[in-house]
Amino acid sequence: MWFVEKHDGTGFMIRGEKIFEKESMQKIEIYSTSLGKMLVLDGKIQLTEKDEKMYHEMLVHVPMLMHPSPEKILIIGGGDGGALREALKHKPKEVKMVEIDKEVVEACRKFIKIDDGAFDDERVEIIYEDGVEFVKNCKEKFDIIIVDGSDPDAVSKPLISREFYANCEKLCDIFVTQSQSPFLQNEHFEAILKNSNVFKQRRIYLSFVPSYPSGMWSFLIAGENLAIDLETIKKRYEERMIKTFHYNPELHVSSFSLPTWLKELIKKYGLLC
Amino acid sequence: MWFVEKHDGTGFMIRGEKIFEKESMQKIEIYSTSLGKMLVLDGKIQLTEKDEKMYHEMLVHVPMLMHPSPEKILIIGGGDGGALREALKHKPKEVKMVEIDKEVVEACRKFIKIDDGAFDDERVEIIYEDGVEFVKNCKEKFDIIIVDGSDPDAVSKPLISREFYANCEKLCDIFVTQSQSPFLQNEHFEAILKNSNVFKQRRIYLSFVPSYPSGMWSFLIAGENLAIDLETIKKRYEERMIKTFHYNPELHVSSFSLPTWLKELIKKYGLLC
Repeated sequence: MWFVEKHDGTGFMIRGEKIFEKESMQKIEIYSTSLGKMLVLDGKIQLTEKDEKMYHEMLVHVPMLMHPSPEKILIIGGGDGGALREALKHKPKEVKMVEIDKEVVEACRKFIKIDDGAFDDERVEIIYEDGVEFVKNCKEKFDIIIVDGSDPDAVSKPLISREFYANCEKLCDIFVTQSQSPFLQNEHFEAILKNSNVFKQRRIYLSFVPSYPSGMWSFLIAGENLAIDLETIKKRYEERMIKTFHYNPELHVSSFSLPTWLKELIKKYGLLC
Repeated sequence: MWFVEKHDGTGFMIRGEKIFEKESMQKIEIYSTSLGKMLVLDGKIQLTEKDEKMYHEMLVHVPMLMHPSPEKILIIGGGDGGALREALKHKPKEVKMVEIDKEVVEACRKFIKIDDGAFDDERVEIIYEDGVEFVKNCKEKFDIIIVDGSDPDAVSKPLISREFYANCEKLCDIFVTQSQSPFLQNEHFEAILKNSNVFKQRRIYLSFVPSYPSGMWSFLIAGENLAIDLETIKKRYEERMIKTFHYNPELHVSSFSLPTWLKELIKKYGLLC
């Protein structure tokens, strides 16, 4: 059978077989496909095994390597465990993961297994709670906050609100969130640019993620100082002995070089480029 | 209606209406879609108006700006006129375009019109001939050869042969060809890497092209010396007063930063990275 995900007059199809389905606060589906296991939430592809590293490595290692010593990490969302797996490569003291839907974690532990044991790591605490409420009430500080949410249509809509960004800004040195496709999902992308102006500095970087709409995926990184220096990043990557499939320090720096049309768009919202 | 293009268990769909169809040496179709006019040859999307600049600008300006004075250009394929349009921005003395299928040019002139008058430019000569035969018999030399062919399944298959590459190598300073998706079309991509080892230096660079399989598109550039220097490229871009929608000199340099898995693959075939 063919799974189909549509966006504004385009669609991505993938051949596969459904191996799990559950109605939780969102509809959870897992397929076995030509790109490996695939997680789908409310009809939207969250990951395939073949390209999830192209997403998770870029989401996590870019902020982690822009910080001199990321010891306390907060992940919001990320129920599949991919972001957690990558964050642990930096040997942090603790990682809190706040996931709204316990059923996603349980389905991924059973059928997807990309966490490589991260869910059971002793430095990890998984909190099943709404991330928006968590940061509103949080008294702790973090070196990095990583937001790994689904499309901001339903469950994840508050994760692109100004209030959420303002609360995160108070709690961390560096903030990163996936920020949708600037090619196909302009409305969401621009809402993120608009609402995130509570941070002092903001940048956009890009990665190829073939199973996401248009394959052109963006990330918003924010903080006090987002200077990018290849030598520093290389040194940290080596010192921390990070091993990656997709990410490398040169790609890190290059992913901040944006097409002209995108530079013009983000400048309107006051981002650096 | 939905147009569908499938590749190895994945597919790209686009909503549109067919406005032209003709059986030539290949099946030519033109649609009006949510991404603008779309050209399809033998069932494969060749361009949509919304993302063709992401492809044509990267195909053309990267080699043209790596040459100090590109005056004589040969384009093989490129029947839609997009590569021709971009090449003329460098004010060359002459551009020869060798297109095997006259019907493609005629359909594009009538229904797509992305050439912006390039087909009628007095520096342009359009030769309706097999590009493979043309380079075999050619006695002229060119500064740049640009190969803008369709997927190497049918009409374009000889455009990835060793013999074709060897003939091109003798005729130009810098050679560039689109080289398929390294994510989804491994067989074609690796055939290109293998057969192109007649050139002294070779590199791969990437661009987002959402309407092509996986959205992750590659280009092979080859020649005697492929050193990349941002300052030189910037200076040439300014001196030649090039205007672009997607391309810029920083993106040019960054597009040569490859993911780790791709670096490992191309190193096996002796390419630089």
